[in-house]
Amino acid sequence: MVTVNENYLKLRGSYLFSEIGKRVSAFAAANPDKKIIRLGIGDVTQPLAPAIIQALHVAVDEMGAAESFRGYAPDLGYEFLRKTISEQDYKARGCQIEPDEIFVSDGAKSDSGNIQEIFGVQNRIAVCDPVYPVYVDTNVMAGRTGVFEEQRGLWSNVIYMPCTAENNFAPELPKETPELIYLCFPNNPTGAVVTKDVLQEWVDYANKVGAVIIYDAAYEAYITEDNIPHSIYECEGARTCAIELHSFSKNAGFTGLRLGYTVIPKELKRQDVMLHSLWARRHGTKYDGAPYIVQRAGEVVYSEEGQRQVKEQVAYYMKNAEYIRTHLQAAGFSVSGGVNAPYIWMKTPDSLSSWQFFDKLLQDANVVGTPGVGFGPSGEGYFRLTAFGRFEDTVEAVDRMTKL
Amino acid sequence: MVTVNENYLKLRGSYLFSEIGKRVSAFAAANPDKKIIRLGIGDVTQPLAPAIIQALHVAVDEMGAAESFRGYAPDLGYEFLRKTISEQDYKARGCQIEPDEIFVSDGAKSDSGNIQEIFGVQNRIAVCDPVYPVYVDTNVMAGRTGVFEEQRGLWSNVIYMPCTAENNFAPELPKETPELIYLCFPNNPTGAVVTKDVLQEWVDYANKVGAVIIYDAAYEAYITEDNIPHSIYECEGARTCAIELHSFSKNAGFTGLRLGYTVIPKELKRQDVMLHSLWARRHGTKYDGAPYIVQRAGEVVYSEEGQRQVKEQVAYYMKNAEYIRTHLQAAGFSVSGGVNAPYIWMKTPDSLSSWQFFDKLLQDANVVGTPGVGFGPSGEGYFRLTAFGRFEDTVEAVDRMTKL
Repeated sequence: MVTVNENYLKLRGSYLFSEIGKRVSAFAAANPDKKIIRLGIGDVTQPLAPAIIQALHVAVDEMGAAESFRGYAPDLGYEFLRKTISEQDYKARGCQIEPDEIFVSDGAKSDSGNIQEIFGVQNRIAVCDPVYPVYVDTNVMAGRTGVFEEQRGLWSNVIYMPCTAENNFAPELPKETPELIYLCFPNNPTGAVVTKDVLQEWVDYANKVGAVIIYDAAYEAYITEDNIPHSIYECEGARTCAIELHSFSKNAGFTGLRLGYTVIPKELKRQDVMLHSLWARRHGTKYDGAPYIVQRAGEVVYSEEGQRQVKEQVAYYMKNAEYIRTHLQAAGFSVSGGVNAPYIWMKTPDSLSSWQFFDKLLQDANVVGTPGVGFGPSGEGYFRLTAFGRFEDTVEAVDRMTKL
Repeated sequence: MVTVNENYLKLRGSYLFSEIGKRVSAFAAANPDKKIIRLGIGDVTQPLAPAIIQALHVAVDEMGAAESFRGYAPDLGYEFLRKTISEQDYKARGCQIEPDEIFVSDGAKSDSGNIQEIFGVQNRIAVCDPVYPVYVDTNVMAGRTGVFEEQRGLWSNVIYMPCTAENNFAPELPKETPELIYLCFPNNPTGAVVTKDVLQEWVDYANKVGAVIIYDAAYEAYITEDNIPHSIYECEGARTCAIELHSFSKNAGFTGLRLGYTVIPKELKRQDVMLHSLWARRHGTKYDGAPYIVQRAGEVVYSEEGQRQVKEQVAYYMKNAEYIRTHLQAAGFSVSGGVNAPYIWMKTPDSLSSWQFFDKLLQDANVVGTPGVGFGPSGEGYFRLTAFGRFEDTVEAVDRMTKL
């Protein structure tokens, strides 16, 4: 008789954003006259930039003609895209990442979920608390996390690195030694960043203890301040300890188009095995490439025109971030993030729990945010707002909130 | 210190098609003047049909306008596509598959590789021999296959179902009882099919022993004969034992566009758990949906115009299949398949091994095929040719082969 993967049965409730979706749908169904403003899930609202639309049309036409039709993509992704990434995201920043160290994929969510699979199940992970739920959930599915301790709201075999107001939402080096360390800067959900010097400490630590850092750089396009690294490979020694994940979702609005990439330097080995070749094997066996037309869309993001247009979109969202941050602050809320990130992390008022505040905000202001506790127990009493809405909606949502 | 997933280290050589790619690249580099004709990897060559191109353009324009832009797709895929699939691929054939039992994905390769993950590692799989390598390799990665026995060329903990000329390349019910059974009809690589009565025996068997059938229907569009089932759900009782995988790659040329779907009926439970909810959890946690524009392209495949156009393409490839089959037969080769499938399965001449024939064909005829042994030991002495080339190339390749 078939047995199921029992690790799946250990998973807690449903995926955070599915639960939010359900509550919002129920409210909307019961209150069809209310205008709900969504600052919850981190989905963009600006349409794709004109240069991207144009590149898509050109590529679509190529797919319609015999001489330019493209079938299966190369295993790592098209070279035109990997070369561009190598030059503009890395070499231009002084990082020696070669095109054949880049794996093009359908997005950072898939990659951040699948990357754990190339490691043994006995490895212990360290994660920030609060944290993007995919890192933990996919390790639960793999059987790496032990048992869930209801009381503490934590997994017994996960090393948590609390990110709280006390440490400015930047994790400290863990006391116990992990094998895999998930880091994300600019951070989701807190919007926190670390300086290059601080990130260098993490790289040095990982190299010292033999850990591997899985570095999620999905939000690097939102960095506005100097001395905040855009890539972990800006740190010396990162090539022997770090895997980096990138998304086109937030810098160029690809949430509905799907494109990302993962970097694994060839020096990164464990047990004499190149992690690059393990990931190459997974990529080649369980995945079949991002669509040609989407890879062409990704390429044009790096063109002069594309860069100008996507930077305008990022600036648009950062104007939202500033509006949320400054107006909530002025109204007496305690907020952080939103300076180098599209997320604002706020303390819930009146000691409300995260979900209490979620329900209250939905009910009374018809605004959707994300309960901080959904990202981990240290997120309890916090709430995440995203800057990805339309400006007018964002202003209206903030105004409704400040009038609560 | 981090350990790697040691199951990965057990994998044999590289993925079959990567190895073929390497040998062909080396030959091409050394012989730049030779015109190589590729009838190896099952990639299509006809451009996307006009209706699909038009739907893509329309959807791209939607992505460029604020009011019609789409971000993250719904977890299971857009309802417009799932409803169409439910109606046309299932209800029109008398199969009660509902839209919410359909999971839209980026293709059957990913799904056939990932689906094993919702089952426990202790389950034993049964596969045809020869077989599409992804089924076995992904179970090796999961640690389900035991050790590789060099002598036999087989994994110790896999139940093999030999498909040979003796049984007309249709597997017999296994003597040992498996928990997971991979079936693919029309078959890759042999091109064999089974009748509805025979498939019903498999469904009855699975229900009797509590096994789950993973049914790969990627090639159903190539069925030309009556009484060959297009879906396993045409068999009574399949809803309690079968998962079905579908691809848009072969029926509509989406190899470079990426779209597929997986069906898990809600009655399909093991240990009182709906497999549907396990897959929903995986889908929601480790995947983020096929691009909106590609889902729209998939929808139009089912329109009247789309159906007419993609059926013309299938007919084009089947004309190739007939040409290969009849001309090789006339030249004295022993061939099968190619009647309800785009694959021709031929016996290598002069008792050559599969790879010997591969190298000879590449060297002397500059034709690329796929060594049968790459699909399993019972494929030794066989060779797969695909009908997905251009007609003129196919004719030339066959002519070169018959003159060898």
